[in-house]
Amino acid sequence: MKRLNIGLIGSGFMGRSHALAWRATAATFSLRTTPHLELLADIDEVTARKAALGFGFSRSTGDWPMLVEDPDVDLVDITTPNILHAPMCRAAIAARKPVYCEKPLAPDAATAFALAREAEAAGVPTFVGFNYLRNPMTELARDIVTSGEIGEVWNFRGIHAEDYMTDPESPWTWRLDPKGGAGAVADLGSHIISLARYVVGPIERLSADIDTIVRERPTRDGRRRAVEVDDQARALVRFASGAKGTIEASWVATGRKMYLAFELTGSKGSICLNMERMNELKLYVSGRPATLDGWVEIPAGPAHKDYAGFIPAPAHQLGFNDIKTIETAEIVRGLTGNGLKRMPDFREAAEIQAVVDAMLMSGRNGNWVSVDDVAKAAGR
Amino acid sequence: MKRLNIGLIGSGFMGRSHALAWRATAATFSLRTTPHLELLADIDEVTARKAALGFGFSRSTGDWPMLVEDPDVDLVDITTPNILHAPMCRAAIAARKPVYCEKPLAPDAATAFALAREAEAAGVPTFVGFNYLRNPMTELARDIVTSGEIGEVWNFRGIHAEDYMTDPESPWTWRLDPKGGAGAVADLGSHIISLARYVVGPIERLSADIDTIVRERPTRDGRRRAVEVDDQARALVRFASGAKGTIEASWVATGRKMYLAFELTGSKGSICLNMERMNELKLYVSGRPATLDGWVEIPAGPAHKDYAGFIPAPAHQLGFNDIKTIETAEIVRGLTGNGLKRMPDFREAAEIQAVVDAMLMSGRNGNWVSVDDVAKAAGR
Amino acid sequence: MKRLNIGLIGSGFMGRSHALAWRATAATFSLRTTPHLELLADIDEVTARKAALGFGFSRSTGDWPMLVEDPDVDLVDITTPNILHAPMCRAAIAARKPVYCEKPLAPDAATAFALAREAEAAGVPTFVGFNYLRNPMTELARDIVTSGEIGEVWNFRGIHAEDYMTDPESPWTWRLDPKGGAGAVADLGSHIISLARYVVGPIERLSADIDTIVRERPTRDGRRRAVEVDDQARALVRFASGAKGTIEASWVATGRKMYLAFELTGSKGSICLNMERMNELKLYVSGRPATLDGWVEIPAGPAHKDYAGFIPAPAHQLGFNDIKTIETAEIVRGLTGNGLKRMPDFREAAEIQAVVDAMLMSGRNGNWVSVDDVAKAAGR
Amino acid sequence: MKRLNIGLIGSGFMGRSHALAWRATAATFSLRTTPHLELLADIDEVTARKAALGFGFSRSTGDWPMLVEDPDVDLVDITTPNILHAPMCRAAIAARKPVYCEKPLAPDAATAFALAREAEAAGVPTFVGFNYLRNPMTELARDIVTSGEIGEVWNFRGIHAEDYMTDPESPWTWRLDPKGGAGAVADLGSHIISLARYVVGPIERLSADIDTIVRERPTRDGRRRAVEVDDQARALVRFASGAKGTIEASWVATGRKMYLAFELTGSKGSICLNMERMNELKLYVSGRPATLDGWVEIPAGPAHKDYAGFIPAPAHQLGFNDIKTIETAEIVRGLTGNGLKRMPDFREAAEIQAVVDAMLMSGRNGNWVSVDDVAKAAGR
Repeated sequence: MKRLNIGLIGSGFMGRSHALAWRATAATFSLRTTPHLELLADIDEVTARKAALGFGFSRSTGDWPMLVEDPDVDLVDITTPNILHAPMCRAAIAARKPVYCEKPLAPDAATAFALAREAEAAGVPTFVGFNYLRNPMTELARDIVTSGEIGEVWNFRGIHAEDYMTDPESPWTWRLDPKGGAGAVADLGSHIISLARYVVGPIERLSADIDTIVRERPTRDGRRRAVEVDDQARALVRFASGAKGTIEASWVATGRKMYLAFELTGSKGSICLNMERMNELKLYVSGRPATLDGWVEIPAGPAHKDYAGFIPAPAHQLGFNDIKTIETAEIVRGLTGNGLKRMPDFREAAEIQAVVDAMLMSGRNGNWVSVDDVAKAAGR
Repeated sequence: MKRLNIGLIGSGFMGRSHALAWRATAATFSLRTTPHLELLADIDEVTARKAALGFGFSRSTGDWPMLVEDPDVDLVDITTPNILHAPMCRAAIAARKPVYCEKPLAPDAATAFALAREAEAAGVPTFVGFNYLRNPMTELARDIVTSGEIGEVWNFRGIHAEDYMTDPESPWTWRLDPKGGAGAVADLGSHIISLARYVVGPIERLSADIDTIVRERPTRDGRRRAVEVDDQARALVRFASGAKGTIEASWVATGRKMYLAFELTGSKGSICLNMERMNELKLYVSGRPATLDGWVEIPAGPAHKDYAGFIPAPAHQLGFNDIKTIETAEIVRGLTGNGLKRMPDFREAAEIQAVVDAMLMSGRNGNWVSVDDVAKAAGR
Repeated sequence: MKRLNIGLIGSGFMGRSHALAWRATAATFSLRTTPHLELLADIDEVTARKAALGFGFSRSTGDWPMLVEDPDVDLVDITTPNILHAPMCRAAIAARKPVYCEKPLAPDAATAFALAREAEAAGVPTFVGFNYLRNPMTELARDIVTSGEIGEVWNFRGIHAEDYMTDPESPWTWRLDPKGGAGAVADLGSHIISLARYVVGPIERLSADIDTIVRERPTRDGRRRAVEVDDQARALVRFASGAKGTIEASWVATGRKMYLAFELTGSKGSICLNMERMNELKLYVSGRPATLDGWVEIPAGPAHKDYAGFIPAPAHQLGFNDIKTIETAEIVRGLTGNGLKRMPDFREAAEIQAVVDAMLMSGRNGNWVSVDDVAKAAGR
Repeated sequence: MKRLNIGLIGSGFMGRSHALAWRATAATFSLRTTPHLELLADIDEVTARKAALGFGFSRSTGDWPMLVEDPDVDLVDITTPNILHAPMCRAAIAARKPVYCEKPLAPDAATAFALAREAEAAGVPTFVGFNYLRNPMTELARDIVTSGEIGEVWNFRGIHAEDYMTDPESPWTWRLDPKGGAGAVADLGSHIISLARYVVGPIERLSADIDTIVRERPTRDGRRRAVEVDDQARALVRFASGAKGTIEASWVATGRKMYLAFELTGSKGSICLNMERMNELKLYVSGRPATLDGWVEIPAGPAHKDYAGFIPAPAHQLGFNDIKTIETAEIVRGLTGNGLKRMPDFREAAEIQAVVDAMLMSGRNGNWVSVDDVAKAAGR
């Protein structure tokens, strides 16, 4: 039984979610390597110490570069505001530490590809937290497509819509800082792009339409600040496989709280998956008797990848944090040479970011854009 | 109590649906003008006579021009294959008879606008059968938007997807004849476009991506014939109001049987309507207490427009043919000077067709297309 | 082509629904016998004439016994308040006319069995309007059970709950008159009992719990009148087949508008049917691969009994009045010697009423009651 | 910051779920007392040691009485087969240790009340794991009822149906041992009874119908053994408040995997909660405008009790193990004098068991049974 010492930077919502996931990983999956909450860094020592106590870390620090260098830290886990992801990743790579970074990896594809190249040159394993890929129902969707059971993919309609920015008085935050690469496309669109790539494959070309609905927002200090990033976006997309479809992202989708969903149409069947009910997948397969023709509503259960670690009974349901635990387990497996290495690395994150960049470019210039061209220009 | 003598051309599925609707109209809505099934025309006298008996028409004919001229026919109702719509409408206009034509009115916007101009010049009332507009839940959606209750419309995602052409061995039919203006965009897309215009208003510009999936199909005589029309399409759309969104149409959407649906996002609320469950509308309105926040699932009932004529109790459900009966009642009201004249006329059908044409043009040339330009070029 | 002259008594909601159904019957099902709206009777000549015009009847009368005797009336159709059903049926039997009576046939099983015996002795065909039996999805449920596909039936949970009497200020009506046999059990419970018998078979024994929630209601003349009938009821039931289950009825089920539903559990599969979405049936069949295990949601379509007459495309939906049209078509088939004679006759209505009586008796005495004993005591 | 040392007995599915919950408790809820996984006991030292490593316990033992006596164990947590619950609880009480026992506490109400009395006499805090009470949506249901917003409760239809015993070849297990008090009523019925009591209050009288469907099952050693406990059951129930309803339990409900659900009807509104979609609650409140009347679908979010500890965004979903974490947090709060002490103690578990016993008694004798009489006879 070995120990994997985690160094976590950031103790906000996502930091807590990572801490909970790391704590649960070994017990859930009976892994032989046990993640240990070794060191927590945050903006200052007081904040870090408080969170370390709450989350169960052994030590804390207000100095994140120290964490990266700490000889007892085996893996650097980054959950800070987006703008800090790139420098922290770079430091981890320099220190030859495996690094696990929350999405988005970088504000643009150029930075992301640079990070990927650096990590590859250094031989550092990298992981990016597109957690919905680890939902057992996502894996089921991918397995069904891969098996050929629903034939050739003809159409993919993908959406990630929430409404946390609908209120125009909702304040200006770091999510709105274009230096962080933010906007709805980057923040939410990247999730549905990651799913599209995971299930259908690379996106080749796209044409996007993008808007900023709320033009300015109040700042914490009582002034108003212009919003430069997008609130909602849609794109026509063409996949390398020949499939076509649409990708949509919005953080002003009034009423929607977690509408990350897709419908995938194949020549012999179709799949609907909606994270609003993430423990269900709807499957249609052609060829049933006409009187019994219909969609099957499949509840997640122990027959599905990774579910059985949590509960031995079907339909008892996994939650958001459980999916994160599957992610951390996949990282452990990735680092210890087991498993299928399904986790997106920096290169995959850069590819996803290239699609984001292509959407933004197309939204600006009104033309179809080649994702390959964008990726190459970004140093793929 | 007056009588409105109906002359129906065509006795297929849609002819039967119209006959049933006309028969039910007066009894359902206690109208003072009673539609009477006067004369039925079909391809030959034998076919027409048989259908006339079954549907309850007084007379029949194998000669449709005779029907148009018949002095006892007050209204010409056209349910023939698409390619015949235009000449039949033209004959009815020439005979100064009100005309009710199934959608699509014409194979292209130029023909449709020409028909509209001719009818207007002749002072002939016209009606086109975009029946889903008459679903009480569609009217409710429109009323909610119009009332301002959900604020400004920000996004509209509209889809009409079915799968009746998924099977590549499904034979070549008149629906695939480009002379009839067909393809999924014209056949199904026109429905969702009609809904988009009815609820959100005119579409100004769009960028479309269109494909033909099944490249050839068997003909009835055992050969194979190339398919020239589209199987599936998606478009980015911009409305005159500033709203944006997507329109999608497919008749190869494996598993979908009646997925005519939209989600409309407003600044203060949102609406989902899906004709797969056409007796329900989902409404979100901002501002509920946080613990009780959510979407309301509204079942159709007698409080909604036109429902009470059928059943005095809510949630007892209307069917497809009932919606057609609402349409015929609206025509009677239109002709007798009552009601709001909500039925689309030839001009509205031409505007819808201009959007269809713009989608096809954009699909071909890969550019954003101005619907206004298309409509003007078509002689709007 | 023959004509079946209908004599309808009653022009309220249900009278209109019958008129619409009769008008649509032949056209929908291409029957060779055409129902003709011959004569309409109501409480007085003026009311009857007005309704006759609206519904399209040839003649009208304020004298229902005259209608029964009229030589041009081939079938007597009764849609009056419950209390009048029995005397009108009796008159029709005396006149040797086939009779179609809305449910409930009679205020108690004794009257119902007496009517059944009289009709049988006279050789008069009889039909009772338990219309939900004619929903194609009900027929599908029965066919699935009969086929053995889901094995032996172990449990049946049946409910009919609406809320039209929830408001204590909702006035006293003829529905509350115990002489009409009314109460939620008789009014709504009879529907779910008819479904239970149709799909699972006879109910042998039961134990019920029944209450009157709203003890008095306002009358039309401004006073208050005590309510003697039940508002809600539940019963444990045992079927002759060995299946067990529950039956529930309520007209004070706040929020429920049309919750007529059952879940039937078999040894190898299960069925859920809910008339709130009456165009869908959910089916579970054991033995699917574990990763694809789930319920199939089957939309009604032309493959299902009686649907194709209305629409050739699946999932386009039938409405309440369409189901009534299936019922009238089944009557025509029954009278003309075609079809399976699936319509409940007076004897079946009496058997249903015996279950209602048994529920009321058990509710009063708190004991398990034998339905057979009740039926025998009522002169089965 | 204090430490609460957990001594867990049992390392099966439920033991792992408890271990995960204890590990997550402090980090999720920022509690000042941190549960520590001190000692794990199982049937032998090898089993215990292996599980201790996997779950993260400091120590292990094959001798559970030793665990109870261990001075470093602050709380005894019992997740063993049912038959062992009572003796282990008794030992913990004798050792004056707070005890947390999985449901069912005891095979019968007499044993359960005896345990309650012993614990009360010893002043030992007790907790029983009816975890669905801790679903934030359950708390919401209770809060809505308590607030009076939906008026007086008129009806409660409660169900817990799963299908893990449907297969007749599913082997005989300890769940079928009547000495453990088992059967579907005890195993699943107790959950829905606990919910009924939590939301509506005490059940006074009931009449039940109970069956054993699969009469014998294979044993592990290849023989067949008779099944003495019930497979499915339904009861008519009357609450002390005057509300009535039904309770149903089945472990042979083919197709159902986690159908723990209730519909609660009030005079001014109604609630539906179904653990198949445990992150949603449906609420109907009378008085909305007629055109907007309907049920609200409320997704769980940070506005609801205990949710925010897991995720700050609504509709991102909690899972089964998260609910267990809420339970362990409630225990910590109960032990440290904070919180509302909503956890059921041994007395509440005994009251629930009295309803179970009453159902079994009524099922045997066919009469209405007073739950009070059963509880008193059991030494309440």
